[in-house]
Amino acid sequence: MARIIGVDPGLTRCGIGIVTAGASRRVTFEHVEVLRSSAETPLPERIHRIGASIERLLDGEKPTGIALERVFAQDNVASVMGVAQISGVVMYLAEARGIPVALYTPNEVKAQVTGYGAADKAQVTTMVTRLLGLAEPPKPADAADALALAITHAWHLARGGAAVRMERFGRQAAVPGGETPAQRAWREAESKLGRRRGARS
Amino acid sequence: MARIIGVDPGLTRCGIGIVTAGASRRVTFEHVEVLRSSAETPLPERIHRIGASIERLLDGEKPTGIALERVFAQDNVASVMGVAQISGVVMYLAEARGIPVALYTPNEVKAQVTGYGAADKAQVTTMVTRLLGLAEPPKPADAADALALAITHAWHLARGGAAVRMERFGRQAAVPGGETPAQRAWREAESKLGRRRGARS
Repeated sequence: MARIIGVDPGLTRCGIGIVTAGASRRVTFEHVEVLRSSAETPLPERIHRIGASIERLLDGEKPTGIALERVFAQDNVASVMGVAQISGVVMYLAEARGIPVALYTPNEVKAQVTGYGAADKAQVTTMVTRLLGLAEPPKPADAADALALAITHAWHLARGGAAVRMERFGRQAAVPGGETPAQRAWREAESKLGRRRGARS
Repeated sequence: MARIIGVDPGLTRCGIGIVTAGASRRVTFEHVEVLRSSAETPLPERIHRIGASIERLLDGEKPTGIALERVFAQDNVASVMGVAQISGVVMYLAEARGIPVALYTPNEVKAQVTGYGAADKAQVTTMVTRLLGLAEPPKPADAADALALAITHAWHLARGGAAVRMERFGRQAAVPGGETPAQRAWREAESKLGRRRGARS
C-alpha cells in the first residue's frame, strides 16, 4: 500500500495532501491541510515554521513516498525563491529519512488529473474532488494542488513506476494504454454536465 | 567571542568559511572548505549531501551566528534554484538550533571587505587573504566568498549589530566613521603594490 504525501511548496501557503493507493488506480483520501507563515515573520523563522510541520508530518504519517512540485526559475519571480527554499527543506527532510521524492511539473500534474496539461485551477480542483470522492472541493488551490500531486504519483507507481515524461503533454496527446482514470472521469463529468467546454471541444 | 560560519550556498559548490572575532574588528581565521555534489546525482540526494555536512558543522562548530548570501531571482537562472534550495536548508537547520542567520547580498559583502560594492572575485579573494593573514588565497572563489560573508557579519556585530544597508554602496560612498578595516587594508595593499588599479584610481 502506497502512502503518498503531495507537497505544493511555498512560504506563505504550503499545500499538503495525503492519499493511499493499492495496486489498482483507485486512490483514497487521507488528509489535506495548508501550512502558512506570515510575510511579517523573519525569513529563517518562516522556513523553520513550515519545515518543522513537514518534519512532524513525515515522522507521524510515515509516507512511502513524497510528490513535490518541481520549481522553475521562470515562474513568478516574487514567490519562486520561497518555493525553492521550502522545496529544498522538503527534499532534505525526506532524503534524511530514506523517503523517495518524486518531482512533477505543474503541467505533468494537470495532464494526469484532468487529461489536459493546460487545465486551470478550477478544473484541477473539480477533478481532485471527484477522484477522491470528497463531499466538498478542497480549498485553497494549494490544498487541491497537493492532492493532485499525490494522486499523480500514486498513479505513476500503479503503472509500475515508469518514468513520467508528460511535460509537453497536450490535449491532443495520446496516452499509452488509453484513457487515464482522470480522462475517463472527466469525460463522464462532461457528459453529466451536459455542456461542451470550449477549450476541450 | 563571536564564532561565525559564512555560507556561500550552492548545489555544485557550497562555500563554508569560519572566523572568530572579539569586540574589536580583528577577525581570526578558523576554517574553510567547499562542499560539493555531482550534477549526475539525483536532486534530493544532492541537497541532502550538502545539508548533512552543514548540519554536522553546526553541531560540531557551535557557531554563534550564520552569515548567508541572500539570493535573488534575477541571478543566473541555471543555478539560482539550487542556491535557493540550499539556502532554505541552511536557514531551517540554523533556526532549529536557535542560531541566528544574517542575510547579506553579494554587493554588501564586496562593499564591506573591499570598500567597493562592484569589486570582482579576485579583489574579494585578495582582501580576504590579507584580512585573515592567510599564507595562500583561499580557492575556489566560493571559499573566499564564504569567508568574506563571515567577516562582513563579524564586523556588523562589532559595530553593535546596526542594520547593514549597503546594497547601493559604491566606490564613492562615504562610510560612517571613516575607513573600514577593509578600505584601510586595501589602501595599504595598493601602496605596497606600487601601482594604480584602473577601476579604483
